[in-house]
Amino acid sequence: MIKAGIIGATGYAGAELVRLLLGHKNVEIKWYGSRSYIDKKYSDVYQNMFEIVEDKCLDDNMEALADQVDVIFTATPQGFCASMINEEILSKTKVIDLSADFRIKDVRTYEQWYKIQHKAPQFIGEAVYGLCEINREQVKKARLVANPGCYTTCSILTCYPLVKEGLIDPDTIIIDAKSGTSGAGRGAKADNLFCEVNENMKAYGVASHRHTPEIEEQLGYAAGKQLTLNFTPHLVPMNRGILATAYASLVKDVDYETVREVYDKYYKEEKFVRVLDQEMYPQTKWVEGSNYVDINFKIDPRTKRVIMMGAIDNLVKGAAGQAVQNMNLMFGEDEAEGLNLVPMFP
Amino acid sequence: MIKAGIIGATGYAGAELVRLLLGHKNVEIKWYGSRSYIDKKYSDVYQNMFEIVEDKCLDDNMEALADQVDVIFTATPQGFCASMINEEILSKTKVIDLSADFRIKDVRTYEQWYKIQHKAPQFIGEAVYGLCEINREQVKKARLVANPGCYTTCSILTCYPLVKEGLIDPDTIIIDAKSGTSGAGRGAKADNLFCEVNENMKAYGVASHRHTPEIEEQLGYAAGKQLTLNFTPHLVPMNRGILATAYASLVKDVDYETVREVYDKYYKEEKFVRVLDQEMYPQTKWVEGSNYVDINFKIDPRTKRVIMMGAIDNLVKGAAGQAVQNMNLMFGEDEAEGLNLVPMFP
Amino acid sequence: MIKAGIIGATGYAGAELVRLLLGHKNVEIKWYGSRSYIDKKYSDVYQNMFEIVEDKCLDDNMEALADQVDVIFTATPQGFCASMINEEILSKTKVIDLSADFRIKDVRTYEQWYKIQHKAPQFIGEAVYGLCEINREQVKKARLVANPGCYTTCSILTCYPLVKEGLIDPDTIIIDAKSGTSGAGRGAKADNLFCEVNENMKAYGVASHRHTPEIEEQLGYAAGKQLTLNFTPHLVPMNRGILATAYASLVKDVDYETVREVYDKYYKEEKFVRVLDQEMYPQTKWVEGSNYVDINFKIDPRTKRVIMMGAIDNLVKGAAGQAVQNMNLMFGEDEAEGLNLVPMFP
Amino acid sequence: MIKAGIIGATGYAGAELVRLLLGHKNVEIKWYGSRSYIDKKYSDVYQNMFEIVEDKCLDDNMEALADQVDVIFTATPQGFCASMINEEILSKTKVIDLSADFRIKDVRTYEQWYKIQHKAPQFIGEAVYGLCEINREQVKKARLVANPGCYTTCSILTCYPLVKEGLIDPDTIIIDAKSGTSGAGRGAKADNLFCEVNENMKAYGVASHRHTPEIEEQLGYAAGKQLTLNFTPHLVPMNRGILATAYASLVKDVDYETVREVYDKYYKEEKFVRVLDQEMYPQTKWVEGSNYVDINFKIDPRTKRVIMMGAIDNLVKGAAGQAVQNMNLMFGEDEAEGLNLVPMFP
Repeated sequence: MIKAGIIGATGYAGAELVRLLLGHKNVEIKWYGSRSYIDKKYSDVYQNMFEIVEDKCLDDNMEALADQVDVIFTATPQGFCASMINEEILSKTKVIDLSADFRIKDVRTYEQWYKIQHKAPQFIGEAVYGLCEINREQVKKARLVANPGCYTTCSILTCYPLVKEGLIDPDTIIIDAKSGTSGAGRGAKADNLFCEVNENMKAYGVASHRHTPEIEEQLGYAAGKQLTLNFTPHLVPMNRGILATAYASLVKDVDYETVREVYDKYYKEEKFVRVLDQEMYPQTKWVEGSNYVDINFKIDPRTKRVIMMGAIDNLVKGAAGQAVQNMNLMFGEDEAEGLNLVPMFP
Repeated sequence: MIKAGIIGATGYAGAELVRLLLGHKNVEIKWYGSRSYIDKKYSDVYQNMFEIVEDKCLDDNMEALADQVDVIFTATPQGFCASMINEEILSKTKVIDLSADFRIKDVRTYEQWYKIQHKAPQFIGEAVYGLCEINREQVKKARLVANPGCYTTCSILTCYPLVKEGLIDPDTIIIDAKSGTSGAGRGAKADNLFCEVNENMKAYGVASHRHTPEIEEQLGYAAGKQLTLNFTPHLVPMNRGILATAYASLVKDVDYETVREVYDKYYKEEKFVRVLDQEMYPQTKWVEGSNYVDINFKIDPRTKRVIMMGAIDNLVKGAAGQAVQNMNLMFGEDEAEGLNLVPMFP
Repeated sequence: MIKAGIIGATGYAGAELVRLLLGHKNVEIKWYGSRSYIDKKYSDVYQNMFEIVEDKCLDDNMEALADQVDVIFTATPQGFCASMINEEILSKTKVIDLSADFRIKDVRTYEQWYKIQHKAPQFIGEAVYGLCEINREQVKKARLVANPGCYTTCSILTCYPLVKEGLIDPDTIIIDAKSGTSGAGRGAKADNLFCEVNENMKAYGVASHRHTPEIEEQLGYAAGKQLTLNFTPHLVPMNRGILATAYASLVKDVDYETVREVYDKYYKEEKFVRVLDQEMYPQTKWVEGSNYVDINFKIDPRTKRVIMMGAIDNLVKGAAGQAVQNMNLMFGEDEAEGLNLVPMFP
Repeated sequence: MIKAGIIGATGYAGAELVRLLLGHKNVEIKWYGSRSYIDKKYSDVYQNMFEIVEDKCLDDNMEALADQVDVIFTATPQGFCASMINEEILSKTKVIDLSADFRIKDVRTYEQWYKIQHKAPQFIGEAVYGLCEINREQVKKARLVANPGCYTTCSILTCYPLVKEGLIDPDTIIIDAKSGTSGAGRGAKADNLFCEVNENMKAYGVASHRHTPEIEEQLGYAAGKQLTLNFTPHLVPMNRGILATAYASLVKDVDYETVREVYDKYYKEEKFVRVLDQEMYPQTKWVEGSNYVDINFKIDPRTKRVIMMGAIDNLVKGAAGQAVQNMNLMFGEDEAEGLNLVPMFP
C-alpha cells in the first residue's frame, strides 16, 4: 500500500484527490492536512464523505508528514510548497506539488508573474513537469513533480502535436479558454458568490494570467524555440470543466487527414487523450468527473488557420486526476489505476 | 460474468446503468437496446462513452435478448415491459424493470393512475418491489423485480421507520419533493428546454402525480393499513438530485434520541442509507453520482410535527444504482459491487 | 419630486431599489448609503449602473439624511433601523424599513426569534405592516412602514383568502417554501459560493426560520385567533424567485368554483396579484423582475386538503418592489408607478 | 400611436419585442402573429403576460397585416420575410426583419452560407443594415431594415473603431464568442434540453457559422476592403448574454490612451455603448435585460495584439431592443424610447 498525505485536503482540488485516492486499490490516505480545520472531522467539512472518511483534519507539518508517508500531495496556495520543502523531506518521500512553485524553470519568470519570491530555487532543476503524456519517462524517476495547472494541461495537450510537428506558426497561437468556477477555489470571496457567477460570463486576467508563461514554456520546448502567445481565461457559470479554443496559422496547406495523423501520432496510444471523430467537437460535460482530455480540430481554408479545441475536467485531469496519474507512474503502478472513471452524464 | 442486456439504453437512466455496469467487475453488457438509434454507435449517442463502449445500438427484442443474457434491464416507458414479458423470457433470464409496470399490486390502481391497460397482470403477484433496504430477502429470490421510482425511493426511505414504528399518524403525511430535470428524460419537449427550466421553479402533477399510489402502497404496508397522503413534486434547475421534505404529526411526545433510535434500528447497518448527525440536513450535492440516501429529521415541539428530509441522486439510488443493487442481490454478488462510488463534489 | 435616501444601497435589495426608483417618474435618489463603500462610486460596486448613476456611496447617518429627503429606505441588517430611528427623524421624513425590526408586534417574540434586543420598542405600535394588498389604508397614513419579508409576502398572500374566509383549519397549515440565492445577500460566505449552491438543494432553518412568527402573526389576524404552523425554507440554485407550496385541511366540502371565488373576492381588483387559470401553476420565471404574485390552488378530494401555491420575485414583491408600492401609497402616488414591469422571460 | 405587428411573436425574440413594446409609450401592438399557436391566447404561450396581454395569436399573413399597421417586425426563420415581402407591402408599411434575409448585400454569399434561395433579391439593395450606431442616418429613411444578428452586433461594435481607424490589421482578427442558450430559440430540440446544456460548454459551427460573412461584410466597409476572419461561437449554460473576445494584431505601437480615444471618438455620444473604465472588463450580467453594449480592450505589449471585449443581452441589443431602436429612428421617435432599461442584477 502506498501511504499518502495530502496538505490542503479541504480545498476543491484536495477534496477531489481524496475522492480519487479512495477508489485507488493500492493507496491509503494517512493525513488529511488542513490548517483551517485542524481537529475537525474531514466529513464535517465535506459531507459527501460522511461514513466514508472518519479521520480528522491535521496540520500542514510537512516534515512530520514525511516520516509517515510515501507520497505527499501539496494542494496549497503558491509559495507554500517551496517554503516547506527540503532535502530531508525529499530523501524520505516523494512530493507532488499541485501549486505552480516548481512548474517554471526560470525562477525570474516565476517571480515576475506570481509576485512572490521563490524560497527553494535549488529544487527547480530537479522537479519534473508532470504532464504524463509528454514527460512520462522523467516522471517515473522523479522525487518532485510539478503538477501542471488546469488551463495549461488543457491548452498544451490541445496544441502540442501541431507545434511539435511544425504544422503551425507558434507565434500566431491564441488560446481562448473558458472555465467552470471550481477553479477559483473554496475561499469566501464575493466575486465567486452564486448570484455573481450564475447567468454571467466574463474574461479575466486578460494578457496577464499566470498560466501564460507555463504554456509558453512547454509549447516552446515542443517548438524548439521560445514563443509568446495570447491566453485569455473566462469564467463560466458551471462547477467543473475547461474548454480551450486555440487558433493558429498553418504554415502549409494541409488537409484533415494530415492533421489527424499528427494528432494520432502522439495520442493514439494515450488512454486519457481522446481525439474525437471528425466534426465532433469537445464538450466539457463529456469528460466530467473523468481524467480524459477530449480534443479535436477544424481547418479553416478561408483564413488558413486551424482551430484546435480541448476539454477537461479541471479538478481531475486539470488537478487531482493528473496528480494520481503522476503518482502511479512514480510508484510503478498501472498508470490508470484509480482513474478508470466513466464521465458522468448528465 | 453476469451477461446483461439493457432495453432503453439511450435514455438517461439507461445511460447511467451503462456507466455503473462498466464499473462492475462481474458484469458484461451484451446488448445496448435502443429503438430510436438502431445500428448507431452507442458512443455517438453518449459521447462520454467514446473509446469506452464500441458497441452499436440494437433493437428492443426482449425474446431474442433473453437467449443471450442473464439479466435484462428495461429502462423503458410505462407499458413496454408488461407488453413484452412472458413466462418463456422469465424462465431464461431475470428481469429488472425500471418502469412502473410491476410496482403496484392492485392492477386497477395502476390502470387508473397510468391511464393504460396492463398487458401482463399475471406477473404482478410474482414481481418483487425492489427497495433493497426493505425487501432484501424477497429480492434475492426474485425472477422479476419492479425497480422503485425515483421520488418513491426517496420518499419511502425517508418516512419508513417512523411509519413502521407508529411514531407518526400516517394520515397526516405530506411529502413535498423537489427534483432535478434529468428525471424528465431525454425526450425533446419544449418544457424541458434549458431556457424554460433554468432560473425557474414550479410544482407539477399536483395531487395527481403517479408516484403517489406507489408511496401510499409501500408506506401502507409499513403502517399495517391503507393510507392516503399528499405528494407534490417540483421541478428545480439542476441536472440530478431529489430532495423530499416530509411532514407528519407525532402521535406522542418524543425527543430527538427516541426518533434517532428508530432510524438507527432500520438503517444503522445499511451501507447506502446515511442518517446524518443532528442539525445536518441532507443536500442533494452530497450524494451526487452515488447510491446513497441521506436522511435526517427535526422535531417541531410547537406544532408537534416531525419534519423528515431525504436526498438521493435520482439517476443512481432513484434508478440505475438501485437496479444494480437489486441485480447484485439476485445474483448473490456483494450488494455494493459497482456501487462503491464516492459522491462527487462540487 | 419625492426625494429618497437608501441606507444599505449596496446589498441586493438596496440595488434593486435603485433599479426600480430610477424608473419612477416622481422620485429622485439623493443618498446612496453604504457603510462598506463610502466614497466609492456606486457604479463601481454595481457595474450595471455604469453611466446611469454617477453618485458616490455615503455613510448611514440617518439623522443627517432625514434633513434631506422625504423618505428613507433602510435595507439593512436586523437591528439597524431600530437602533437609529427616533421621533425627530420620523417628524421629518417617512421611513420604510426592509428589515424585520418593526414587523412583529410582540417585542418578546421578536427578541426570541432574532436573538437581539429591540432598541426602539416604542415605535412598534405605530409601525404599519406594509403588505399593501391587506393593509392599504393604514399604509397610506403611516410614517413608519415595516416592509414584509420575502418568504412571508409570498406565504401570506398565498394563504390569506382561505384563512380569512374560514375555508381551512389554520392549525393544519404547512408551508414548504423554496428560494433563489439572492435572498441570502451579498456577504462573502463560503456557503453561498457558486460551487456550493449550484447543482444543489437543501432545507435550512427547519422549524426555526425567523419568518415563521411573522407569517403566524399575519395569518392569525386573518383567522381571528393565534395559530402555529410549519414553515420550511429551501435554497435552490437560481438567482431570484420564491415558490411557496402550502398545504391545509379544508373544513368543509368545497369545489373549485367556491375556492376560486374566495380568491377573487380578495384579489380580483389587485393589480399585482394574479390568480392563474385553473390547472396553471405558478412558476417563478413568470414573475421575474416584476412585482407580481402569481397564485393558484388545487383541491385534493382524496385527502380533503387544498394545496395553495404562490410565486414572487423575492427582490421585487419580496423586497424592493413592495417598498416602492408602499412609498407610492404613503405619498399619494399611483400605487403602480415605477412598477409597471413586464416579467422578463427567459 | 405607432401600430405594430409582430410575425413570429411566440419565439424568444418575438416575446422580447412584446415585452419592450409594451413599455413604449407610443406603440400599440395590433397583431401577435404565430402560425403554431393561431387562436391561442398569447398569455397562454407566455404566462408572464397573463393579465397584461389579452390578445390571441393570429396567422402570419403579411399582406393583411400591412393594411393594419405602421410597422411589421418579422421575427421569423431565414427565408420567411424574403418569401412574403413585396412592393405593395412596403408601400403601406415599414418592415424590420430580424432574420438574416436582407443583411448581406451579395445574394450569392447569402445563398451559399444559408443554403436557401433568396426569394426577393430585388429588395436587398434598398434594405438598410440596422446597426443604429453606424448607420443611423440611413435607418431614419428606410422602408426595410435588416436587423443585425446577435453575435454580429456584439462582434462588430466591439471591433469597429479600431478597424475603421486602421489601428489593427483586419486580416488578423479572430473573434471567439460565447452565447447563452436563448439564441438557440424555443424549438424542441434534444440538444437544447436543460440536461444537455447545463454544466456544459462547447464550440459549434466552427469555421462555418452563418454570422461570419455578416461580420466580415460590415467590418470590411469599415476597413475599406474585403477581409476574412475567424469567428467561433460557443454555447454556455445561461439564458441570456453574449460575450465576444476579439483578438487582432496592432499595426503600430499604441498606448492605452490612444486606443481609448478611438473608442471614444465613435461611442462617447452613444447612449447604448458603454466603454468601461480601464481594467474593468465586460460581464454579460451587467447588461442583462437592457439595450447596452459594454466594451473594453487590453493591449498586450508582449504579442503586440489588442484584446477587445464586448457584452450584450442577445435578446435585447442582439435582437428585439435593436429592432425597437431602429423603429424609433424610422418613426422619428426618441431613439431610446422604450429602451430606458436598467440592467437587472443579479
